[in-house]
Amino acid sequence: MANPKESSGEVAPVTGDMSADEFRRFGHEIVDWIANYFEHIEELPVLAQIEPGDLKAQLPPSAPENGESMEAILADVDRLIVPALTHWSHPSFFAYFATSTSAPGIFGELLSAAFDVKSMLWRTSPASTELEEVTLDWLRQMLGLDAGMSGFIYDTASVSSLHAIAAAREGVEMRIREEGMSGRKDLPLLRVYASEQAHSSIDKGIITLGLGQRGLRKIPTDSEFRMDPNALAAAIVEDKRNGFLPFCVVATVGTTSTSSIDPVPAIVPICEKHALWLHVDAAYGGSAAIVPEMQHILAGCDRADSLVLNPHKWLFTPFDLSVLYCRHLDLLRRAFSLVPEYLRTPEQEKVRSGSDYGVQLGRRFRALKLWMIIRYFGHDGLAARIREHCRLAKLFASWIEESPDWELMAPLPFALVCFRAHPTAAGETEEVQAKRLDVLNEAIMHGLNATGRAFLSHTKLNDKLTLRLSIGNIRTTERHVKQVWELLNEQLKLLS
Amino acid sequence: MANPKESSGEVAPVTGDMSADEFRRFGHEIVDWIANYFEHIEELPVLAQIEPGDLKAQLPPSAPENGESMEAILADVDRLIVPALTHWSHPSFFAYFATSTSAPGIFGELLSAAFDVKSMLWRTSPASTELEEVTLDWLRQMLGLDAGMSGFIYDTASVSSLHAIAAAREGVEMRIREEGMSGRKDLPLLRVYASEQAHSSIDKGIITLGLGQRGLRKIPTDSEFRMDPNALAAAIVEDKRNGFLPFCVVATVGTTSTSSIDPVPAIVPICEKHALWLHVDAAYGGSAAIVPEMQHILAGCDRADSLVLNPHKWLFTPFDLSVLYCRHLDLLRRAFSLVPEYLRTPEQEKVRSGSDYGVQLGRRFRALKLWMIIRYFGHDGLAARIREHCRLAKLFASWIEESPDWELMAPLPFALVCFRAHPTAAGETEEVQAKRLDVLNEAIMHGLNATGRAFLSHTKLNDKLTLRLSIGNIRTTERHVKQVWELLNEQLKLLS
Repeated sequence: MANPKESSGEVAPVTGDMSADEFRRFGHEIVDWIANYFEHIEELPVLAQIEPGDLKAQLPPSAPENGESMEAILADVDRLIVPALTHWSHPSFFAYFATSTSAPGIFGELLSAAFDVKSMLWRTSPASTELEEVTLDWLRQMLGLDAGMSGFIYDTASVSSLHAIAAAREGVEMRIREEGMSGRKDLPLLRVYASEQAHSSIDKGIITLGLGQRGLRKIPTDSEFRMDPNALAAAIVEDKRNGFLPFCVVATVGTTSTSSIDPVPAIVPICEKHALWLHVDAAYGGSAAIVPEMQHILAGCDRADSLVLNPHKWLFTPFDLSVLYCRHLDLLRRAFSLVPEYLRTPEQEKVRSGSDYGVQLGRRFRALKLWMIIRYFGHDGLAARIREHCRLAKLFASWIEESPDWELMAPLPFALVCFRAHPTAAGETEEVQAKRLDVLNEAIMHGLNATGRAFLSHTKLNDKLTLRLSIGNIRTTERHVKQVWELLNEQLKLLS
Repeated sequence: MANPKESSGEVAPVTGDMSADEFRRFGHEIVDWIANYFEHIEELPVLAQIEPGDLKAQLPPSAPENGESMEAILADVDRLIVPALTHWSHPSFFAYFATSTSAPGIFGELLSAAFDVKSMLWRTSPASTELEEVTLDWLRQMLGLDAGMSGFIYDTASVSSLHAIAAAREGVEMRIREEGMSGRKDLPLLRVYASEQAHSSIDKGIITLGLGQRGLRKIPTDSEFRMDPNALAAAIVEDKRNGFLPFCVVATVGTTSTSSIDPVPAIVPICEKHALWLHVDAAYGGSAAIVPEMQHILAGCDRADSLVLNPHKWLFTPFDLSVLYCRHLDLLRRAFSLVPEYLRTPEQEKVRSGSDYGVQLGRRFRALKLWMIIRYFGHDGLAARIREHCRLAKLFASWIEESPDWELMAPLPFALVCFRAHPTAAGETEEVQAKRLDVLNEAIMHGLNATGRAFLSHTKLNDKLTLRLSIGNIRTTERHVKQVWELLNEQLKLLS
């Protein structure tokens, strides 16, 4: 084991990790394996071409009693795991929000797994605590956000938004942290507002916080899927008249279905008039604000109370790393800080302790990978990649627009294209056509995904099944976008 | 750029990741660096010997405009990051719960960062979904838990316990998911019970869920810091008499201060009598049940509703990976499932979708590292390492017991020793002695930590400042335990 001389004179302990020599040997082998994986990833199907249960059936029902060799384990990664993967790192992954890992991010994760820091107090993780503050301030400047916004890293946008709404809940000054909400006759119905197009994580956060689905009022959107600020204002007034307590609005910059942008500048004065917390869900779209000519997408956010964006979506950061920028960290701290005796430290008044700001006590050293990514690519390099993704999306959209068989279903402020096939058929009623096109487009999607050469997903817009092409992978080039366009047309021909 | 020929004939896009050759070169360099880090880690101070702000002061105020070389970044990891780290991987890290990463776990994280899977639906991550089910079933068998318990991976125990209590809340059948808890006159005060020694994450989970601090009733403990089941039963009866709604009990197997074990077999019938959800927080202690002769620590858990344990604490798994075993995944699903159109898939009725069971939509491919660890060490190898940690703790405790200057402050069911120095002084009142010993022990701890040669933390037991020595690092051997014993005695001599 690690160092045989340590046990001289003692009973030989069965402890220790892999030897340093073995660590080097297998570490190099895995690094080479990953380099090869990326070089040959296009030979693999994007969407795993297996049936549910296929992997399970190949694995032993119980753990091995004795250790196995790393050779055997790595052979099984190749033989069993890879065929069961959907390859998020494939340049023809266009589903959901296409995202991507990157080499400096992978290196950051590798180092972080070795350091194995639990970032809960400053003293348990000075490097993590301070690098997080500095790196998020770098990112804040890149995004054009004002210095009033302090950043904090969570795992996912779902958790970031939950914390933002929890801070807003604390801000209503109804002693909810102390008294809770059950068994109280003095507490009116608390309400949060978000558009019909808001992400399901907002619903989940509100359910988790005990506010219930009734605690979320969905506001209608306009023809471009953006929250209608007049409807928002009217809903708040109506709710207040009914004795409810509106306390938070969630606006989205880059909704999940279409990447639409809620009119934050028009929402801000409504929130200010009624003293509501404005949380901006820019999980997907926010990263694009580092591109100077796209910084306008965050217009109005200088008056938002909090904003979430996910470097693991569009800043080439391995999953997970979500950033919450917040103007009132004091409230977040008041909502979550609890310092038991065993976590008391002499320096606690002078420093930031991660565990004060959330449900999670310990957090991984996530800032490391983001810091390495920003340094390796630079602000310009990151902006260039996002700009290129937007160019490719617009190029694809132009092909859609030029073709009589296809149509765009929504504007594209970022690098997501919503579209569908709509070949004409003579003498059809509207209803029959609607049904035919839904069936056709779903079939195109499944047919294309089954080829393994690209992976698309869908949504429904105005009750019409709509295909989504999301460009966000660092390896995606014009060639891949051309290829998926050809594949789509092949599918259309096959199915027509 | 990934592959120069891709842009032939197109405008050269500024996209792509690091080249494969560079990835290999720097990947090997980092692997060697980590091997060297582990080989020489004992030359580094365990607790970072820096002052708050020291790292921040050395970092540029803004992100670089242009990319920097990986050489420069890695040089800064050495020059800036390492001195600002508290080294959790150091074999003389005895603070909090000592934990450790391991080589197969680091390799699992490395591969996972390359695959970058978001495990939200089966189709986005068949390998992650199915490997998680299989690996957690292996672990369940190793722990001696019954097959009625299904496992699910979250990031931290805080989040696992929050989900368990949320499922219990859903189980009260008061439409809390739909209606929430605010603005309701029909909802009594909901109550959870945990001992005074329960972890702060239980308080935080309950606060987050909107149940408030008032929603948690702390039950007194006996002289060995274990929940008093009679006090629990009486509290429930009293609360019911007052019209409150008891719905959940959290018992702890391995509390944070002393690693005491609540009497689960005596708590079970109380929960069953009142139809309360029993959640067992075995975040630290649970892993020890893989050691056959220690399996009794989970006695009674065959009748618990849920149980959390953290492989990232004592199964050599890089942070983060927490497992929730639950007997009622259906309730958890009912509490959290929301499937928007863009996540609908043809196979969704046949498979498990991770996003149905929690706040987080996407989850990392965490099962991979745990699978690799269990295979590399084997059940026997993991058990041997935990057994050795317990032996070392008992050995240290025997030195304490043999010395007139030191005393044990709690029993040690696992590998945590609670102790303090108590050198006698003639003619002292009890009050003066209590104060003197608190000051002395805190000074010993800070003095020892300042040497950088070991790192201890503290707690308070019966209002007495108590030192904690936690053994959990894969590199810790008898030599390190002897060394910290010598260091403690040196500090005591210095301060006497």
